[in-house]
Formats: sequence, structure tokens, C-alpha cells
Amino acid sequence: MGEALLDRSEPDTRRRIIETAARIFRDIGYRKTTVADIAKALKMSPANVYRFFDSKKAINEAVAETAMAEVEAALEAVATASGSAAERLRAVIAAAYRMSTERYTANLKMHEMVEVAMTESWDVVHRHLGRVRALYEHIIRDGIESGEFAVTDAALAAHCVQTALVRFYHPQLVEQCGREPGPSLEAMTAFVLAALGHRG
Amino acid sequence: MGEALLDRSEPDTRRRIIETAARIFRDIGYRKTTVADIAKALKMSPANVYRFFDSKKAINEAVAETAMAEVEAALEAVATASGSAAERLRAVIAAAYRMSTERYTANLKMHEMVEVAMTESWDVVHRHLGRVRALYEHIIRDGIESGEFAVTDAALAAHCVQTALVRFYHPQLVEQCGREPGPSLEAMTAFVLAALGHRG
Repeated sequence: MGEALLDRSEPDTRRRIIETAARIFRDIGYRKTTVADIAKALKMSPANVYRFFDSKKAINEAVAETAMAEVEAALEAVATASGSAAERLRAVIAAAYRMSTERYTANLKMHEMVEVAMTESWDVVHRHLGRVRALYEHIIRDGIESGEFAVTDAALAAHCVQTALVRFYHPQLVEQCGREPGPSLEAMTAFVLAALGHRG
Repeated sequence: MGEALLDRSEPDTRRRIIETAARIFRDIGYRKTTVADIAKALKMSPANVYRFFDSKKAINEAVAETAMAEVEAALEAVATASGSAAERLRAVIAAAYRMSTERYTANLKMHEMVEVAMTESWDVVHRHLGRVRALYEHIIRDGIESGEFAVTDAALAAHCVQTALVRFYHPQLVEQCGREPGPSLEAMTAFVLAALGHRG
């Protein structure tokens, strides 16, 4: 498809498809939704939806990326706010947890979407994990420079922090959490700060 | 069924059912196996198997418990060997990882069994997690007493260690690991030791 075929409303149509698909996935579940359902809700032909996304999988990837971009923007604001490195790390960890649990408890169908993305579109999840980790790394580097943290390798430390907290963010573990009470997020955050050699 | 009906070979029959079921689950998968398959392999009637286990689920629980008991015994030997608390904690973490990855890579059907146990028989998994955590706690308590570790609450610290390492032991995360390279177990163990306030 050549550039000349794209009119000015195209980015808007793309955005509308993503928003509508997100709503339908949340309402009736990802697996039950067809591209025809999405087209119908938008009062357009399936062929027109396929001009923007070549599969339902591609639509889900765009939906997941949009949702993750919102989370990343919110976390970036917290990570770059004022405060000590420890305060900002605590705030980012808490905000990420709050946002992910709100999503799940608000709508269990979200679960299915995220699970499908994790199974079929790992790259999308991979990039998100990388961007969140970059925020951890940014804060840890600040903490090293200010003498707040004793670790020396900020990139490795960020990866360890993310790994240590996986239980609080991984959809399946969040679900199993209820059955297996463990340390609170606050206790795990304190544990992680101790691992960073936090001098409080 | 009264005690008088049980002859001396009963514990042995129970053990044989568990061993045979474990082998068949590994060979053809848990879901595809029926109680009749297990009975046939043992040259006994399904009714006789049902005298010992009232469902396939109950057989799987016994299989899982037997496998977990083997792991626990091996880890307990490592946890109570000689050496500093840090050395023993490193050794237990490494041994648990080695045993769980050997199981998975040796036979992917094991995966299905463990997943079924996690879904249908969480109590079995819950008790295993509790027993492994008790070993961590025992070592941490030794480390606190000897002045090796700076933490004060051994039970909470053990829970945090177990939570921080979930990625290396949870079947689904072990599977996703390959797709998402993260810190090595050695790096995570060093991170966890730092969180315990290890004075090396």
C-alpha cells in the first residue's frame, strides 16, 4: 500500500480500532472476540480493519502496547520526581503494583489478554520489561552517585530488583498470591533496598 | 474399610501404585492417563487401585508428594551440612535449582503433572514451600546467631528469600526464562545475601 493511499484520518482510525478492541476484549474476552466483532462495533468492514492490522494478534499487540505505554509514562513521572533514590524506588514499585492489581481486579478478562500477549507476543512484554527496568536502573544510578546505595553495577542491580519482585507483577503469580500468603510488597521493597546496600 | 482388612502388603501396594503412576504420567502425560491404565500396568483391577486412592487427583498428589519429599530430604542434607550460613544458603539454593531444572529438562511431561498439582492440589505445593522455607529459616537463624547476617527476623527473611527466587523455581517462569534472559542464579544469590546483610 503506497503512502498516497493514506488520508489524514488514518492515525485516528488506528487509535479507534485499538480503543474499541480493548473495550471488547475486556467485555467478552480476547478469545471470543473476532475481527468481525471489532469491525461491527466500529461500523466498518473487516477488510478496513485488516488495512491497519493483519491479524487479531496484531490488534492485541497494539492494545497491550498502548496499555503498557500508559503504565510506563506514569512510572516515569514517579521515577523522575523529586526525592531520594530510595523514596523514588519505593514509589515506582508501589505505583507499578497498584496499577497492575487495579487492572486485574477491575476486570478479570484483562488477564486473558495479558496471558495471550505473554504466550503469543513475548516481544511486546519483553520491551515493556526493558523499559521498566531502565527506570529502576536510572534511580539506582542516582543512588550510587549520591552514595545512598552501595552496589556498583546499576544495570545488574536493576535486573535483580525486577527479578526479586516478579511475584507482584506476573499475572499468574498475582493470581496464586491469594492462595499463598507471602511477604507484603513493603517487606519485599525493604529487602530489595537492603540488597542495594541502602544507607537509610 | 476397617483396619483388619489391611494386610501387610498394603504399604507396598500403595508405593507400587505411586511409582507406576509416576512413570506413566511421565511417559504419556497426566491428562491422558486413566486409573485403568495405571491398574493395567500393575496387573490389578481399577477397583483395587481405588481401594488406595479415591481419584486420579489423589494419585497425582501422592506422586507429587513423593517427588517433593525426595527434594526436601536432599536439601535438608545440604542445609545441615558443615559450613558458614552463607555457604549453606548458596548450596541449598543451587541444589534446589539443579534438581528442579533436571526434572524439567529430563522430561517435559513432568511439567504437566506439576501444573496440575499447582492448579488442583495447591495444599501439596503449599506444604512443600513451607518445608523448603523452614530450611532457609534454619540457616538464616544460624547466620544471625553467628553474626554473619544483619537481619533480625529470620522467618520474614526466609520468606523474602523464597519470594525473590521464585523465578528460578516456578514451572511457568522457568519456561519463560529462556525467552527473557535475566540475572544468573549466582547473581540473584549474591543479591539475596546482600539483602540479608551478609558480612562476607
